[in-house]
Amino acid sequence: MSLNSTNEIDIVKAISSKINDVDFENLSFGSTFTDHMLVCDFKEGHWQKPIIKPYEPFMIDPSAKVFHYGQAIFEGMKAYKGENNSVWLFRPEENLIRFNKSAVRMAMPEVPGSIFIDGLKTILDIERDWVKKGLGNTLYIRPFMIAVGSGVIAQPSTQYRFMIILSPAKSYYSGEVKVIIAEHYSRAANGGIGAAKAAGNYSAQFYPQKLAQEKGFQQIIWTDDATHTKLEEAGTMNVFFRINDTLYTAPTSERILDGVTRKSLIDLAKREGINVDVRSVLVDELIAAAKDGSLKEIFGAGTAAVVSPIVGFQYQGTYYELPKIENSIAMQLKDKLTKIQYKLAEDTFGWTVEV
Amino acid sequence: MSLNSTNEIDIVKAISSKINDVDFENLSFGSTFTDHMLVCDFKEGHWQKPIIKPYEPFMIDPSAKVFHYGQAIFEGMKAYKGENNSVWLFRPEENLIRFNKSAVRMAMPEVPGSIFIDGLKTILDIERDWVKKGLGNTLYIRPFMIAVGSGVIAQPSTQYRFMIILSPAKSYYSGEVKVIIAEHYSRAANGGIGAAKAAGNYSAQFYPQKLAQEKGFQQIIWTDDATHTKLEEAGTMNVFFRINDTLYTAPTSERILDGVTRKSLIDLAKREGINVDVRSVLVDELIAAAKDGSLKEIFGAGTAAVVSPIVGFQYQGTYYELPKIENSIAMQLKDKLTKIQYKLAEDTFGWTVEV
Ligand SMILES: Cc1ncc(COP(=O)(O)O)c(C=O)c1O
Ligand SMILES: Cc1ncc(COP(=O)(O)O)c(C=O)c1O
Repeated sequence: MSLNSTNEIDIVKAISSKINDVDFENLSFGSTFTDHMLVCDFKEGHWQKPIIKPYEPFMIDPSAKVFHYGQAIFEGMKAYKGENNSVWLFRPEENLIRFNKSAVRMAMPEVPGSIFIDGLKTILDIERDWVKKGLGNTLYIRPFMIAVGSGVIAQPSTQYRFMIILSPAKSYYSGEVKVIIAEHYSRAANGGIGAAKAAGNYSAQFYPQKLAQEKGFQQIIWTDDATHTKLEEAGTMNVFFRINDTLYTAPTSERILDGVTRKSLIDLAKREGINVDVRSVLVDELIAAAKDGSLKEIFGAGTAAVVSPIVGFQYQGTYYELPKIENSIAMQLKDKLTKIQYKLAEDTFGWTVEV
Repeated sequence: MSLNSTNEIDIVKAISSKINDVDFENLSFGSTFTDHMLVCDFKEGHWQKPIIKPYEPFMIDPSAKVFHYGQAIFEGMKAYKGENNSVWLFRPEENLIRFNKSAVRMAMPEVPGSIFIDGLKTILDIERDWVKKGLGNTLYIRPFMIAVGSGVIAQPSTQYRFMIILSPAKSYYSGEVKVIIAEHYSRAANGGIGAAKAAGNYSAQFYPQKLAQEKGFQQIIWTDDATHTKLEEAGTMNVFFRINDTLYTAPTSERILDGVTRKSLIDLAKREGINVDVRSVLVDELIAAAKDGSLKEIFGAGTAAVVSPIVGFQYQGTYYELPKIENSIAMQLKDKLTKIQYKLAEDTFGWTVEV
């Protein structure tokens, strides 16, 4: 191992790279990791010096609070390959801000940008070869923080670990997506943690998701838990509805994650002169629009899939199929956003950041 | 280390015991652990052979699903010392049943009684000396299950680890408990995971709990998230209200944990001829009863503290102090329940189980 530390970050390089063992044409999402990881511990009220070192398992006490009380948050981002081996991030400051909002809600310490952003750039520079050229190829980035302090008493930990791990990914295609509208289960609540990327929000969805899959649906459109009348998110994505030529998406709230893809699509759509109305869409409106033919498109929006078109939805036992349309707005926006991310179109918004 | 395995459980004993280093008079809750732990892995669709071995940290992959998606559940139980070095459990089957309900809700495999109950009895037999005589001394038992499978994709794990760790405890006295009634934050939602002992439910409370503490309140009385009008739980305990001579407690639901202490207190109270009405109490009713003097007691009920009397509550900026009363029903019930648990009173319900 070679030690190549900067002033701010210790670096211990892996003896050899696993990169030649990886089949980049056949990657299953989130299961292959690069040679290194970033680790930074919080103790005695302070963040310690981060270290980049070989990706490997680590030791943890059975009573660590993350295991018992789920005190854990994460982010999901991507790195893209540009010309001349350049590597680009997309709006990384947004992820930092959201990460720290999640941290506050989960009573965890905020992570300074000098660790989150600079750490990310340093590790990405080391793993540059893992970011492959070509539309659809990305390096998925998973920053996360867990409570490592020990003790089975339901109180915030005093010790935390922040980590960044990296996983190469092909473009995410989930096949034809049929969804079911949630009539009973819910993802988030008023006064709850739905607006945080808190670990516990995600496992809470596994069981309802399994029930939906058993009925032949790939995803759930979540509704508000109190009345189940407002359409909120699609699985772990924000959701858009196109009725006639207007795009609708719910405003962010305590129950809805402030997605970076969502807000970028809103800005892009506006620039393209598409009408965007940020307001809650009611289930009843959706049914009426499906019946009278004014419902043209539904799509999820999130970092992993960028845009995920939905072909139909079920509600109260009735399946509503969407029309096959030309000039899908979802696909136009996906194309425009992706080209900005890969530096194939001009980035008039200033969203892309070079590593 | 000596190997002393039964047919069903492998046993690797610690070389020496830490027990003489422990000050049993000054224990802080949940921070000291016994010499051994039970570990049982689930993989390839099956539970493997459990092992009891020295308590120690273990290795885990940074991408383990428990860290990213909070797929984790737990139980909280106690062991009590009776005559002649006997060790007793209180309604352990109830914890097994609830654990497996939690498992289903979190899309995790159920744990068979042969692992949960028999494993518990075997490890408690080994740790018998850690269960100290005397009212208030207990060995707190923490069975838990975490998703150890790797991969940063939001899907249920295929690999899990079930563990039991044990922590000696003195009687839990939390001082004078003043509570604040939740007007904004919420613990659980319809269609959510509030009825499961899922890890994520607990860290979700840390931030509101911190805000309450900053205002001088030790706990929050949770209300339903949709209307904040129904009184549901007190911190991580069920809650009882005594108005005149009737005890009220909310029915269990998707939002309320089915507490073993709660249901035992209901049965005990009924046996004592106390009127018990299992129904939601509204905030308005509570305020009215506080004002007209019919509100006599409020108390939390849970394994850790058994019964935790509340001296007053705040709602919409007004603090309501409870009267100092003689013949507290809370204290009577606590006394009766504790005596059954310690085998100092006849167990007509058949609740106690010898190890
Ligand atoms: C619940 C939820 N909604 C929406 C999103 C989309 O957010 P982003 O576009 O920032 O990836 C995510 C994360 O990917 C999410 O977890
Ligand atoms: C949310 C919640 N409510 C109530 C209780 C009380 O349950 P029990 O009496 O089984 O300990 C617990 C657990 O201790 C809990 O976590």
